[in-house]
Amino acid sequence: MALIVQKYGGTSVGDIDRIRNVANRAAQTRREGNDVVVVVSAMSGETDRLIRLAQQAHETPDLREYDSLISTGEQVSAALLAITLQSMGVPARSFLGPQIRIFTDSAFSVARIQNVETKHLRRAIKAGIIPVVTGFQGVDKGGNITTLGRGGSDTTGVAVAAALKADVCEIYTDVDGVYTTDPNICPDARKLSRISYDEMMEMASLGAKVLQIRSVEFAKKFNVPIHVRSSFNDKNGTWVVKEDEKMEKVMVSGVTLNKNEARVTIAGVPDRPGIASKIFSPISDAHIVVDMIIQNSSADGLTDLTFTVPKVDLKRALKLVKKTAEEIKAKEVLTEENIVKVSIVGAGMVSHSGVASKMFTALSRENINILMISTSEIKISCVVEAKYGELAARVLHQAFNLEKGS
Amino acid sequence: MALIVQKYGGTSVGDIDRIRNVANRAAQTRREGNDVVVVVSAMSGETDRLIRLAQQAHETPDLREYDSLISTGEQVSAALLAITLQSMGVPARSFLGPQIRIFTDSAFSVARIQNVETKHLRRAIKAGIIPVVTGFQGVDKGGNITTLGRGGSDTTGVAVAAALKADVCEIYTDVDGVYTTDPNICPDARKLSRISYDEMMEMASLGAKVLQIRSVEFAKKFNVPIHVRSSFNDKNGTWVVKEDEKMEKVMVSGVTLNKNEARVTIAGVPDRPGIASKIFSPISDAHIVVDMIIQNSSADGLTDLTFTVPKVDLKRALKLVKKTAEEIKAKEVLTEENIVKVSIVGAGMVSHSGVASKMFTALSRENINILMISTSEIKISCVVEAKYGELAARVLHQAFNLEKGS
Repeated sequence: MALIVQKYGGTSVGDIDRIRNVANRAAQTRREGNDVVVVVSAMSGETDRLIRLAQQAHETPDLREYDSLISTGEQVSAALLAITLQSMGVPARSFLGPQIRIFTDSAFSVARIQNVETKHLRRAIKAGIIPVVTGFQGVDKGGNITTLGRGGSDTTGVAVAAALKADVCEIYTDVDGVYTTDPNICPDARKLSRISYDEMMEMASLGAKVLQIRSVEFAKKFNVPIHVRSSFNDKNGTWVVKEDEKMEKVMVSGVTLNKNEARVTIAGVPDRPGIASKIFSPISDAHIVVDMIIQNSSADGLTDLTFTVPKVDLKRALKLVKKTAEEIKAKEVLTEENIVKVSIVGAGMVSHSGVASKMFTALSRENINILMISTSEIKISCVVEAKYGELAARVLHQAFNLEKGS
Repeated sequence: MALIVQKYGGTSVGDIDRIRNVANRAAQTRREGNDVVVVVSAMSGETDRLIRLAQQAHETPDLREYDSLISTGEQVSAALLAITLQSMGVPARSFLGPQIRIFTDSAFSVARIQNVETKHLRRAIKAGIIPVVTGFQGVDKGGNITTLGRGGSDTTGVAVAAALKADVCEIYTDVDGVYTTDPNICPDARKLSRISYDEMMEMASLGAKVLQIRSVEFAKKFNVPIHVRSSFNDKNGTWVVKEDEKMEKVMVSGVTLNKNEARVTIAGVPDRPGIASKIFSPISDAHIVVDMIIQNSSADGLTDLTFTVPKVDLKRALKLVKKTAEEIKAKEVLTEENIVKVSIVGAGMVSHSGVASKMFTALSRENINILMISTSEIKISCVVEAKYGELAARVLHQAFNLEKGS
């Protein structure tokens, strides 16, 4: 008998029929002798509807109120799932973030989970009740409702699994698992049966949308096995687990394509110590995530600084950058939204030489110009013109034989 | 400087433009030097949408989950109003029932307020912040969300006003105040400038939908003046206040028409002590409100028992009644939905003779047959065939000269 946390995404609970499907699955898992805890997202479309309402009220709504508003989506789906389970004769009870006491910091809209109390959940499980937990939301020390950012329900699922020392956190979604690359771009894409936490984190941060990156960090920290799978079939999905000796270190596990970044260039920056900090501190204070940063060598005491930010944050970032640029007397600020970032990820990369050059060669063979490069121990990213993005992904998928598997 | 609690109903916060209108009014009241606390209902239509979802999941949803589900409507409107106030530069903050600690009993869907903590509200007011409180919802000792029944936001408004010892609780709605009868039925209907708590309670319990009856009970108990008025204009509405010496005791203040009751008759009931209790205990245990009860005199040891219940509860009541009828060997159970209850209400009735006979005469003059009668110190109700309902209301409105005022 295992303790299984099942997290269902928005499309899996998109209407009452799908909620019934989820209830059947949870009930079946329980009938097989397991204890089950369910974590749910808002019904698909609901969070967007609430965000639109907030933006009608104010372009940049207060984030405390925003969180109180959008957290209602999960409250609705959790209650509906509990009602549906009960209608099948399965004891169930919904629990809100504040009711369980999923404590977070007070960074509204991007809060981080600090602690998950287990008292209420354990009591329910012991009484034979399936707890249905609202994903995405928590409560700060002041009793304010907080939310965890897009995809935050994944993190709730893993955090609840970690707190309960569950055997697995199953993440149900509308795809069969984690693929070597986006199957819509590359028909040869292959489902991975296993992937390490580190690789998954890179994949997630590089644009694979299947899991919120923070949930993988959490899973790694508390060693919670994640099973990513579809709520529409019974196929085995992808296991995200600790990298161990037995696991062959694949050179390259996957290719990602991120279309959501924009490039900012500050041209003619006086090349003095402390300039980078002056530029990036206000951006980081505004909670904007800067990804790649490149500084060109300078000859005349002036340098060009280029970096990428999420497209949604470009307007805000630009305002801050222009202010700094004036202060430090830089020449001009340029932006480019017509770019994409294509990346290869693999835990074995660090022990194989020639991966980078193989990547660059494959791209150059198609005359794809590389605009920016950044690397880590387990990934290499190249920014290219947007029109070449999908071609680049397909070329790299083929170059590293990802369709064949390890 | 006064402390004013303003409660806005669903139509007053039905969309963002109307929410803006509410924000303007609250801000204006504050600019005039008053402290303001706002209580809001769900956006009109939202509660019904949520109820439909619940019923799709299960015909008779578990009431704990039901309350958690439908309480989200107020959470949404409170956050939106707080955001809107802030967008106008007015400091505001939403408070949920559980955040303030509006404690109720655990009678889900019909919970009663037991205590309202004022700490958070007072702190906000002192800091110059307008608290925007979710109506309709509370929390029980176990931390479960509860709701107060249809119109429960009125009660929240009055309870918050009572707890804060506010000078007035303004109830904003889509009509100008309390009328002598429904203006849709009787074009002569006149807005009352004042009405006593007792009369208002009768009016509310008899079908005038302008205020939840429990809110008036609460207001009477804690002597909170209520001002019922429209959120769409600045006219003075109706004050619901303590009856005092100066207030002339009007013989009849209003006429109500209630179309929501159904009649149940148990025919051939053995006329023994304890039978009525056997019949009504299960109904009361099921939280079904029985209104008029009439027992015909019995000659052959058998009697007929007739009573009314809300139409929405008829199905449930019938199930219980049929079970009891079998047990006590009654002859049969009959129901009739095609009835209405027309009533006259007036605090002065008790000291004027002839009110009842005047009522019966007026009805008989139009050949309207009276099916049931019940009276209290300040009201007389007659059940008549549904098709005569509106005629009866008009006839009585005229017979007691209600269009003329006192």
